[in-house]
Amino acid sequence: MPAPASPFTLSTEPLATGPRRGRLALAHGVVETPVFMPVGTQGTVKTMTPHELEDVGAEIILANTYHLLLRPGPEAVRALGGLHRFMGWSRPILTDSGGYQVLSLADRVTLSDRGVRFRSHLDGSAVDLDPERALDVQVALGSDVMMLLDVCPPFPSSPKTLLSAVERTQAWAVRSRAHLARERDAAERELGLAFAIVQGGTDSALRRRAAAALVELDFPGYAHGGLMVGEAKNETFALVAATNEVLPVDRPRYLMGVGAPDDLVRAVGLGVDMFDCVLPTRNARNGTVFTRRGKVVIKNAEWKGDGGPLDPDCGCYTCRHFSRAYLRHLFHAGEILGPRLATLHSLAFYLELMREIRESIAAGRFATMSRDFLAGYEAGEAARSREAKGGAARAGLGRDQGQEGEGV
Amino acid sequence: MPAPASPFTLSTEPLATGPRRGRLALAHGVVETPVFMPVGTQGTVKTMTPHELEDVGAEIILANTYHLLLRPGPEAVRALGGLHRFMGWSRPILTDSGGYQVLSLADRVTLSDRGVRFRSHLDGSAVDLDPERALDVQVALGSDVMMLLDVCPPFPSSPKTLLSAVERTQAWAVRSRAHLARERDAAERELGLAFAIVQGGTDSALRRRAAAALVELDFPGYAHGGLMVGEAKNETFALVAATNEVLPVDRPRYLMGVGAPDDLVRAVGLGVDMFDCVLPTRNARNGTVFTRRGKVVIKNAEWKGDGGPLDPDCGCYTCRHFSRAYLRHLFHAGEILGPRLATLHSLAFYLELMREIRESIAAGRFATMSRDFLAGYEAGEAARSREAKGGAARAGLGRDQGQEGEGV
Repeated sequence: MPAPASPFTLSTEPLATGPRRGRLALAHGVVETPVFMPVGTQGTVKTMTPHELEDVGAEIILANTYHLLLRPGPEAVRALGGLHRFMGWSRPILTDSGGYQVLSLADRVTLSDRGVRFRSHLDGSAVDLDPERALDVQVALGSDVMMLLDVCPPFPSSPKTLLSAVERTQAWAVRSRAHLARERDAAERELGLAFAIVQGGTDSALRRRAAAALVELDFPGYAHGGLMVGEAKNETFALVAATNEVLPVDRPRYLMGVGAPDDLVRAVGLGVDMFDCVLPTRNARNGTVFTRRGKVVIKNAEWKGDGGPLDPDCGCYTCRHFSRAYLRHLFHAGEILGPRLATLHSLAFYLELMREIRESIAAGRFATMSRDFLAGYEAGEAARSREAKGGAARAGLGRDQGQEGEGV
Repeated sequence: MPAPASPFTLSTEPLATGPRRGRLALAHGVVETPVFMPVGTQGTVKTMTPHELEDVGAEIILANTYHLLLRPGPEAVRALGGLHRFMGWSRPILTDSGGYQVLSLADRVTLSDRGVRFRSHLDGSAVDLDPERALDVQVALGSDVMMLLDVCPPFPSSPKTLLSAVERTQAWAVRSRAHLARERDAAERELGLAFAIVQGGTDSALRRRAAAALVELDFPGYAHGGLMVGEAKNETFALVAATNEVLPVDRPRYLMGVGAPDDLVRAVGLGVDMFDCVLPTRNARNGTVFTRRGKVVIKNAEWKGDGGPLDPDCGCYTCRHFSRAYLRHLFHAGEILGPRLATLHSLAFYLELMREIRESIAAGRFATMSRDFLAGYEAGEAARSREAKGGAARAGLGRDQGQEGEGV
């Protein structure tokens, strides 16, 4: 039983390692790519209503299978009409497989060829997750794009660990494909798309072999997993480009857990179509927002009497109505409206950046757009770094990046 | 120098101790009374944007002088264009005097005839507040309705303490009136209205004497202070009615820090025009919302699979889009969206109730409206009490009521 034809279409030249403008047709709507997916770990993009997400232009969000599996549970969500209805979000949802969070959040994890057994970080109860169950949970949630269960090794890992992770990920992809075909026949309807995940750590040849093996199984999309977890960024981008050479040009490529605004621009230039990251939302809750001129730390004393907006180039609700001084006050006073307004701004900024990226690709001027954006952003970041006394703030920011979901 | 004529007009019979339909014309707009004022302690009604407040029908909000005095400070707010501009709220603001919070929140409070000296609960710094300074701070904030500094004694207090509090409050009212006249002349413009506060604890005769003495000074509005802080509710209402007999019928009466929905309905029937209370907002953040059928505790297991809205009779954003099961999930998961949606509902419910009250008074059918509402609300509360195992939940709710502001 072949997987269904890819619902992904490119409107620009199908470059293997260059910028691409595409559309991904999903059960709950069409997603314009390159796309950034805000992270809604527990069935909510933290602090935001679904209508605010629509207002800032989110076309698809990510939800974490691990968290929803533990609470409220997939059957509870299914009984209430699926995740879309449960959370009041009518546009597409991509769900991860839960594997990454099991390894990073759960207790007493036992990994075997069969799957993974762990203890819930909430109540200590034993939970089994295997490739089949991971898909069943995502089907129960009503996901538009499901991710196959994979093995994401820690960074750094030995060659033996990396190889083992790739082999298990491949074996699980075979099982996943067979399980999905059975479920689709049993349900007598199409299910969400299922994307496979390329592992291999920082071993470029291994990642390419892993990608080639997955491509043999013919999935409608492929993800780069286990990257930007500690390796140098130049290495990340080299690994993405090398793997993209192996992936089919006519399928979406999803770089999981990435990244900062400059990372997105760079990765688009290497042929990536989809992103998710907790950076805009988590950093916002901690009082750091993204702007065209780099990050702004809201609590800083320099904003105390500043009546201007967070980002003079931004037209979001926060920037139209509130000053840096007021936002600083909200954060110092511990008011929920602070994280709300900061999150709204940073997501609006990310999604506006993605719109600009898409427009520039369509107009054949991505190279210029990319160069101009990176120059402005990096100049701002450099100025901020010079001003910052000591490295504590930067260390804190660096720690935030990753695929680990939003936490609780 | 006489105080300006009251900008308060009644469109129904000017009853001393019965329901009244009025309009209070303030610098930032007209307020329809009876009115409920959501509490925005630190320059934000917790979790809400000013535009959401407008959407649920808030016409005036309360801000706490004590909190804003300490952070960000009145001069900072004035430099940024005043509190309205600072927080993005264009409708009227009533500010309290700070006195109540000094006595309940500050450290090392020393009360004298001159004023009150205390240590900030934030950083321990020494702060002086006296009747003149309390008004200066409120003028700096740009308040539409200022409250005079008063002495609010704890409950219960000895007759001697109550008498001393009333005498000081009266002496400070005299000073306040003189100070305001000087400031108005110096500024060569009208300032916000200034309301005086009646104290006297549960001594009805003392409260009436205190009210009569304040009325001699001719203020544009009067407040009942220091009530519903521990005395029986029937006693509260009796004290309010007895004092309202003494207050001029053509001035607004404000019952500070009250209350639950049934309290509002009862007090309106006794001639109260204005209310503020943290109950709808604070309880909502703790997961208890108000409905026409009494309170709903969102975390309760009974809502686990409940796809219905919080309040079937409510048309607010929360009730239109989200189920009890989803709200329960948000609270169990510790998600900020839970307090947001719960706050929005409870404020919408309070403000809709006030609209119904106003309409029923105008139509001459308040008695019927009041009876029907109280019957439904109290039946719901009675059913909830029977179902609740043990008294912990009720004890927790009882503690929430009061004038102490929203906390940090």
